[in-house]
Amino acid sequence: MSVTFKDVKADLLDQIARGVMRPGSLLPNEVDLAESYGCARATVNRAMRELAEEGIVERKRKAGTRVRMTPIRQARFSIPIVREEIEALGAEYRYALLDREMQEVPDWLRGRLELTAGQQVLHLVCMHYASGMPYQHEDRWINPEVVPSVTEADFSATGPNEWLVAQLPFSNAEIAFSAVGADRDLADHLGCSTGDALFRAERTTWLRGKAITLVRLTYRRGHRMTTQY
Amino acid sequence: MSVTFKDVKADLLDQIARGVMRPGSLLPNEVDLAESYGCARATVNRAMRELAEEGIVERKRKAGTRVRMTPIRQARFSIPIVREEIEALGAEYRYALLDREMQEVPDWLRGRLELTAGQQVLHLVCMHYASGMPYQHEDRWINPEVVPSVTEADFSATGPNEWLVAQLPFSNAEIAFSAVGADRDLADHLGCSTGDALFRAERTTWLRGKAITLVRLTYRRGHRMTTQY
Repeated sequence: MSVTFKDVKADLLDQIARGVMRPGSLLPNEVDLAESYGCARATVNRAMRELAEEGIVERKRKAGTRVRMTPIRQARFSIPIVREEIEALGAEYRYALLDREMQEVPDWLRGRLELTAGQQVLHLVCMHYASGMPYQHEDRWINPEVVPSVTEADFSATGPNEWLVAQLPFSNAEIAFSAVGADRDLADHLGCSTGDALFRAERTTWLRGKAITLVRLTYRRGHRMTTQY
Repeated sequence: MSVTFKDVKADLLDQIARGVMRPGSLLPNEVDLAESYGCARATVNRAMRELAEEGIVERKRKAGTRVRMTPIRQARFSIPIVREEIEALGAEYRYALLDREMQEVPDWLRGRLELTAGQQVLHLVCMHYASGMPYQHEDRWINPEVVPSVTEADFSATGPNEWLVAQLPFSNAEIAFSAVGADRDLADHLGCSTGDALFRAERTTWLRGKAITLVRLTYRRGHRMTTQY
């Protein structure tokens, strides 16, 4: 069996975890490591690159590679389409469009999306259900300047997230997680009490510098968004 | 100027964004791409690997590389030490230990950390302030079986997160974000009203299969955890 970059990475992690390699200490150079693992230098290089990307080690061109004093850990969250999220739970997905209206961009949104006063935006309000239970409330604004065909889409059968992904497969996004108290409207739709603490993800999406959409996804009471790293 | 993997990646992303390459469509093979970009095949390969890791394309050994029908987008969150998080805001960091007690592991925690009944755990309650304002409430349990020196640490000056990172630079973690209503105690410490919606991160950390710590970090009212992707 040949030594893979995963083997090298796992062994280095193990040495760091056991304290054999202390925070701040210098790692042997790649040539020496390749020799001691009996593998190609490229294999060691790939392991090092992943450890650097994961914030475990720090590489400097002339000073070599060190174990980070305080590792910068990153948690990654998959951002699935809500239908896939619900189906992955083994539940039956149902979607309902509550409201669809073209309107003048409200003041608070204008600055967020860098639009001009008087510009028309599409406002959508939807609900997503898991086996008949409220799962997620979606409050979305779409900029028709970037996605002109949105003015003809009626969203009665397909949710706007799925529709947008099919139109624009790639975009940049900013996401913010927070907690909000349920107002009367959210409480009614999500089947909880007014004032209950609800988890919210707010996402703004951009395509080459132009805002596509801002969406507020508010989850049913008790929702936890989890990941491992 | 030679063509880098970043150039290749940016160009492929741009073609996907502009719809030149549609979801589900097959990309040219690496040899042909390398020729058209005037770069080494390894350069194309690195660009493809990153696009695959980011969920933009899907690589299959014999079927080639396709643009994903529904990209799996991943958001990455840096998990900093709270002192660094507060200092990055330009605020002055202050730490206070509210409680420190060795006790028998409570039932609810035993299952979570896979401990045995009667085992001793260290329970810590701390507050972190940003320029004198409450920022984060920390409720933490540490397993002394994995970190024996914890029984001698008094945590009066240094927060347990910083202390643990220095002891165990690397570990696996599971993190869950959620919303909680402030109980009387949290409201007192975080300077809000009982029932206010608060953002919480709960993290369990493991070292080679053994639980190190479970911590509940509850943030002041209105906190948003943001990232770009």
